[in-house]
Amino acid sequence: MPMWIVHAPEGVYSTEDKKNITEIITQFYVDTVALPRFYVVVRFDEYPVNSMWVGGVLVNDFVRIVVDHIARQMEDPAIRELCMSMMCEMLAPFTKDRGMRSEIHLDETAMDLWWVDGIKPPPPESEAEKKWALDNAPSPYELADAT
Amino acid sequence: MPMWIVHAPEGVYSTEDKKNITEIITQFYVDTVALPRFYVVVRFDEYPVNSMWVGGVLVNDFVRIVVDHIARQMEDPAIRELCMSMMCEMLAPFTKDRGMRSEIHLDETAMDLWWVDGIKPPPPESEAEKKWALDNAPSPYELADAT
Amino acid sequence: MPMWIVHAPEGVYSTEDKKNITEIITQFYVDTVALPRFYVVVRFDEYPVNSMWVGGVLVNDFVRIVVDHIARQMEDPAIRELCMSMMCEMLAPFTKDRGMRSEIHLDETAMDLWWVDGIKPPPPESEAEKKWALDNAPSPYELADAT
Repeated sequence: MPMWIVHAPEGVYSTEDKKNITEIITQFYVDTVALPRFYVVVRFDEYPVNSMWVGGVLVNDFVRIVVDHIARQMEDPAIRELCMSMMCEMLAPFTKDRGMRSEIHLDETAMDLWWVDGIKPPPPESEAEKKWALDNAPSPYELADAT
Repeated sequence: MPMWIVHAPEGVYSTEDKKNITEIITQFYVDTVALPRFYVVVRFDEYPVNSMWVGGVLVNDFVRIVVDHIARQMEDPAIRELCMSMMCEMLAPFTKDRGMRSEIHLDETAMDLWWVDGIKPPPPESEAEKKWALDNAPSPYELADAT
Repeated sequence: MPMWIVHAPEGVYSTEDKKNITEIITQFYVDTVALPRFYVVVRFDEYPVNSMWVGGVLVNDFVRIVVDHIARQMEDPAIRELCMSMMCEMLAPFTKDRGMRSEIHLDETAMDLWWVDGIKPPPPESEAEKKWALDNAPSPYELADAT
């Protein structure tokens, strides 16, 4: 579900960095809302010099993250603020602490307009989702387990 | 309207594949909701190795599709499910049948915040839209044809 | 806030063009809604030949712009139409006037799911936002200035 696109300057993150970043992000969703690990998709979309402009100025020290949340929606304003705060904190070692500016925003899109491997994912916290989390893979499921 | 972004591993799709994929997608919208063909935009955004991570694991056999629907919104849950199911089926020859994992999600955005060639597109199924479909090109239209 | 992604053919815009385009876009938001300049992020995402398909046809003369509005939402339909019209007009020298086709759409996403440099941005037109605009940079602020 969460689809992360990380716009970062070309070469700024090593493969090791990317592994660390994506493990931190994945663990965040596992710990907070018990998502199956494979739900967490992170695409690094590295930008060449000349590509990223902030306020009309060319920049090369800026990480811009765009996220779509799908499998979980947050209703409570306090939870939403906590989520943003936790995300910024967990990303700080790869942004602020390295002298880079950053910006992140999330959109929430409809869960029923999202399919994985040709299968409609089971409802949040259903038996079928728990199995998907345990297997770390999707599989067909019975309607009875979709609750 | 529909804006498709196909995140696919670099080189996995030939130009012929892309042509076939985009024709299938286009025809789907023409057949189901009579969209003008040129409304259907597909951007292949090929990712280099080291760029796509699923659950903290680097992958290179994964197609992640992100779609914005604009010119049509789907109200009926059954239609929404049918739409997702049909899309997955039509894409299967280019994903599952080739041994690749895939994931797709759609967002629906406001029709009035979408312009083509500097023109506000006519309402769904209006006379003006039918002309756009017939011409396969936008053109200025009279208010009388916007119904 | 506004996050612009400009899908343009590789090499079609010079650095000078990009500077002009991003200055025009930035000034638009400063003039109309007094945004801090650094809120305006523009990513040029240049596409290689073979990547952009419109209605099943490969194109290389097409600029597709995708925008997320975050810090301001537009309620009034007339304002929304005016906004789109102004944007298309200001972009015409870089699209239509150069013989390129173009398409743009905006999404509006939740302001509270957006943070800058680890800080929750202050409310629209608050004292803190005015300071951010004046400094052209984010900084911690007191709750008393968030009004």
